[in-house]
Amino acid sequence: MGTTNHISTKWLGNMAFESNNPSGLSLTIDAGPEDGGEGKGLRPKALMLSSLAGCSGLDVAALIRKMKLEVEEFTIETIGHLTDEHPKYYKGVTIEYHFHGKQLKEERLQRAVDLSIEKYCGVTEMFRGFAELEIKTFFHKR
Amino acid sequence: MGTTNHISTKWLGNMAFESNNPSGLSLTIDAGPEDGGEGKGLRPKALMLSSLAGCSGLDVAALIRKMKLEVEEFTIETIGHLTDEHPKYYKGVTIEYHFHGKQLKEERLQRAVDLSIEKYCGVTEMFRGFAELEIKTFFHKR
Repeated sequence: MGTTNHISTKWLGNMAFESNNPSGLSLTIDAGPEDGGEGKGLRPKALMLSSLAGCSGLDVAALIRKMKLEVEEFTIETIGHLTDEHPKYYKGVTIEYHFHGKQLKEERLQRAVDLSIEKYCGVTEMFRGFAELEIKTFFHKR
Repeated sequence: MGTTNHISTKWLGNMAFESNNPSGLSLTIDAGPEDGGEGKGLRPKALMLSSLAGCSGLDVAALIRKMKLEVEEFTIETIGHLTDEHPKYYKGVTIEYHFHGKQLKEERLQRAVDLSIEKYCGVTEMFRGFAELEIKTFFHKR
């Protein structure tokens, strides 16, 4: 038996929703004014890209610790290209890993990225089901 | 040219990340203590289920308004069953739409759900790429 995640999302009226999370925290979703909302919550489709970056980012952060690597700054850019026609989904997604620091061990950091993409990150695996993925790694030495 | 969503996710150290959103708001991601985090942010994989519920929920909320339907309460339960092996992804997902009210127009609400699932919701379309979907609608009369 695998694990089950169960999320409850409650309508707050108008275009706003509140959704729970296994962390015990919750998040608010809302449409922008151009779609009849008040812009007081997160846009749901973009949350997919945060989920992707967060899932893979946690893998890489765990490996940075495990491998005792020195990284001063680490950002992930997730760029999703939507289809023109409804239902609009991400047909292509670029994931950019940016590492900044004085003593970047490039080979090991690349290995951490590869392990996440190829082995650990379940969200990446889900994205493969509908999108062409492009993975890029950048090392910014200081 | 389709629309592009670009999300930046920045490492805050340890297992925490901050991710932006087109709304101008941002969200914090963190692992739980059992995974070396401090539990001070949202778990990323569960965010996929909030994205799914939020995307479809916004469609249904817009149709409730457009069709001038009376709904007192509306919740969406998204239940994702993960695979046992890495990478752990949602192989099966149940989406339950629960409508509460005294004067529920069941046929129209069902039509709103169907339109979202079949036509409008891009996140549902993405989930179809990796998961078996089960859709259920419940009407709770008061």
